Amino acid sequence: MAKKNKIKRPLARLPKGFRDFEALEIRGLKAMLTKIEQVYESYGFEPLETPAFEFTDALGKFLPDQDRPNAGVFSLQDEDDQWMSLRYDLTAPLARYVAQNFDTVPKPFRRYATGTVWRNEKPGPGRFRQFTQFDADTVGTESIAADAEICMLAAETLEALGFERGEYRIRVNNRKLLDGVLESIGIDVDPDGAAAEQRLTVLRAVDKLDRLGVEGVTMLLGDGRKDASGDFTKGAGLEAERIARIVEFVSAGEAVGGTLFDTLGGLVTGNARGEAGLAELQKIYSLVRAAGFDEDRIAIDPTIVRGLDYYTGPVFEAELTFEITDDDGQKIQFGSVGGGGRYDDLVARFTGRPAPATGFSIGVSRLQAALQVLGRATGPAVHAPVVVMVMDYDDLPRHQALVSRLRAAGVRAEMYLGTSGLKAQMKYADKRGAPCVVIQGEDEVAKGEVQIKDLIEGAKAAQSIKDNAEWKEVRPAQFSVPVESLERAVQDVLSRHSD
Amino acid sequence: MAKKNKIKRPLARLPKGFRDFEALEIRGLKAMLTKIEQVYESYGFEPLETPAFEFTDALGKFLPDQDRPNAGVFSLQDEDDQWMSLRYDLTAPLARYVAQNFDTVPKPFRRYATGTVWRNEKPGPGRFRQFTQFDADTVGTESIAADAEICMLAAETLEALGFERGEYRIRVNNRKLLDGVLESIGIDVDPDGAAAEQRLTVLRAVDKLDRLGVEGVTMLLGDGRKDASGDFTKGAGLEAERIARIVEFVSAGEAVGGTLFDTLGGLVTGNARGEAGLAELQKIYSLVRAAGFDEDRIAIDPTIVRGLDYYTGPVFEAELTFEITDDDGQKIQFGSVGGGGRYDDLVARFTGRPAPATGFSIGVSRLQAALQVLGRATGPAVHAPVVVMVMDYDDLPRHQALVSRLRAAGVRAEMYLGTSGLKAQMKYADKRGAPCVVIQGEDEVAKGEVQIKDLIEGAKAAQSIKDNAEWKEVRPAQFSVPVESLERAVQDVLSRHSD
Repeated sequence: MAKKNKIKRPLARLPKGFRDFEALEIRGLKAMLTKIEQVYESYGFEPLETPAFEFTDALGKFLPDQDRPNAGVFSLQDEDDQWMSLRYDLTAPLARYVAQNFDTVPKPFRRYATGTVWRNEKPGPGRFRQFTQFDADTVGTESIAADAEICMLAAETLEALGFERGEYRIRVNNRKLLDGVLESIGIDVDPDGAAAEQRLTVLRAVDKLDRLGVEGVTMLLGDGRKDASGDFTKGAGLEAERIARIVEFVSAGEAVGGTLFDTLGGLVTGNARGEAGLAELQKIYSLVRAAGFDEDRIAIDPTIVRGLDYYTGPVFEAELTFEITDDDGQKIQFGSVGGGGRYDDLVARFTGRPAPATGFSIGVSRLQAALQVLGRATGPAVHAPVVVMVMDYDDLPRHQALVSRLRAAGVRAEMYLGTSGLKAQMKYADKRGAPCVVIQGEDEVAKGEVQIKDLIEGAKAAQSIKDNAEWKEVRPAQFSVPVESLERAVQDVLSRHSD
Repeated sequence: MAKKNKIKRPLARLPKGFRDFEALEIRGLKAMLTKIEQVYESYGFEPLETPAFEFTDALGKFLPDQDRPNAGVFSLQDEDDQWMSLRYDLTAPLARYVAQNFDTVPKPFRRYATGTVWRNEKPGPGRFRQFTQFDADTVGTESIAADAEICMLAAETLEALGFERGEYRIRVNNRKLLDGVLESIGIDVDPDGAAAEQRLTVLRAVDKLDRLGVEGVTMLLGDGRKDASGDFTKGAGLEAERIARIVEFVSAGEAVGGTLFDTLGGLVTGNARGEAGLAELQKIYSLVRAAGFDEDRIAIDPTIVRGLDYYTGPVFEAELTFEITDDDGQKIQFGSVGGGGRYDDLVARFTGRPAPATGFSIGVSRLQAALQVLGRATGPAVHAPVVVMVMDYDDLPRHQALVSRLRAAGVRAEMYLGTSGLKAQMKYADKRGAPCVVIQGEDEVAKGEVQIKDLIEGAKAAQSIKDNAEWKEVRPAQFSVPVESLERAVQDVLSRHSD
């Protein structure tokens, strides 16, 4: 192969928006996924794995048009010229699966799934075209208890991952309640109706309360708003009175519990949709409180909007509430690390039969970044391998036998597998982060011994030793033991450095 | 969305060659991956994860031509019109990674990787277009000790997965040795030379020894062979004397250890390539024996050929040696469940700098199928959730509180989340395989009790009870406990059924 490519070598690089993951990050991610899985399992969810590809028409809203089959998703045609696409989330494949196996799955069907999803979108800093999601969904019930459970699941998951109470909050709202308020001030809320665009503008404005405050939202609900850079965003064009109603609604979040419900109730009295949404919200409230989840973990928040087309009732958002200060003194908020809600129409798309559903998706990478910043992103404690140095290339079996003994004793170990001298081997052991190396040269063989060099201890000692001569005399952290004691001696070194 | 698709609903199905994985299989696969990982880690390999996509030119031999960009791999064009492809194995991405990070990776670089790979090939029974591989590779050393270690790793991995000694064998050969034999009888072995086609025909014939025996291989080396269906395969067209030499070589496998090497030595004496190959094979032999791996685990076998274009020295194949008899009385051999070898040119394709490498890939699905047949494919013992039945839909919080208590006690539990009556709830619990259900109706609330119904015990009792009347009287495996004892009582039921 090398021959054929002698003239034009391929460049070793990845397509934009894709990246490699190395050991430390992988171990951390795996530890996280295991913790999430344990919580999901304890709640009674079962794993399901669907393949990377779905037929494009099964993905729904991303149907490729003739000219741009790759808008949003990665698509290609199979041998029958049918379009298939890489999944862009784990919800669309779940809907397809349930529709396909409708008669055999238990109802409600409770599944969790973790896996890679792909987005054919413009990549940017921290914005990738492949990432991992972790979802839990309950399909086939309209019971609001299923939504309440999803909120509790989200809270418990964040705590299992290492976030403490007060560092996160699950915020809950209801799309019907929001639509009820809009309806009550005369805005048509049919997502396919004539005023769909205005409704979207209003929802987007509400969604920005966190960032822009009441003043900014007021402008976006009215004529529009000019941002710091001078860019103008056209507003929804509402009159002051209607704006006031919406602002009153989104500001109600400051009140708590009973008071909040009174305020919200006042805003939707007489509107069927709004009253239904409020009743659902109250049900979630009473269920999570009964299960011991207080305001500091799961809170009602009328400003939560989320995915604009998709959700039909309760919506949830998991948020990290703490700020961190980065190296440049900038304050950073992590904000949303997951979310979900009720989507009652996705399975019916296929079957025509109702299969109301609710679910939650965790953005694993963002959580990992947050844990990293908090210094809690520790993977399982795996020590780097102990390296057995090769002193005599004509007698590799002797060295290999030492490695085998260490492995048999449960010690992660390897023989140096390159072909270089001692200096390069030592450098290799350092680069690998080996806790110690094992040395058995001719002298040691004659004496029936092995030498063990504790690299961690050695590095510490090196700081207090002034020259090469002194080093050679002292040889800190280096000692000999009888061959029979090899395993024991290495284990002692490991346990000395294990915390 | 449902509205928009009212007229034409998408069909809920998957593209050909793709499939879903359900809970039992997922748990089994995960348990397997964990065991493999533990062995790979103990050998000092570090995890690496590359993305699904690579630039197509980086994948090497599957460069898409203008007309069929999808031959063998799934390919599409990015926004700059560059072709990218889903990886078809984990080796090509590793070569790209090492080339890209050549200056920073430790050398030798030892990595393991598990992940999905995709093949755009014709699917068939048991032949999928997406599957999981688990690889370990050592890059950047020509030391044969690295190859020997890969063989030991393969053997230990199969044992960790639950195959016993004698049920598997790692078979080792060397491509140089094979080529040496061919050269010594005057066949040009340059894979890009004029006689490349003839060499391939010879290698393919040797590869079929297992299936066709000496007689069949002799025909394929000569004029050709007609199979049972009457199809004729053209042979390599060699004369009897040269055929005899090759047959002598491939039949040498019957001999063991020293004798085998004598026989092989006799066949390549004076041929530099063959002698080098034999020396490497002997080195592997002595290293694995020194590490305690005997003939029944790692064996030299001159008939192993493997991937024809790719390998440059040692080649390995992991084989299951037992036969099973299926329900129809047919004998089934699982055969190869993994393999690998040395590939010294893959990284150099990018860099022009040598980075010799060796590795091994496990076909996880085949191993899982084999373990299933042996009845050893047990995932971790996860019991189905305990179901708390809903007796009063107006007081869900009371039921939810019971679930919360069970979960807090470490019991996998769920409240029934549908909206149906008791009969449907009981059916649901059965379908889920719940070990028991918890019932707390008005009576129980009044008495401060909960009822627990042991479904496993109940099913057994049902077999010995003759009618409904007797059932109602006895109510086997159903008992009440004070609410405070809920957790304890449920845990007792679980531990009763835990083995």
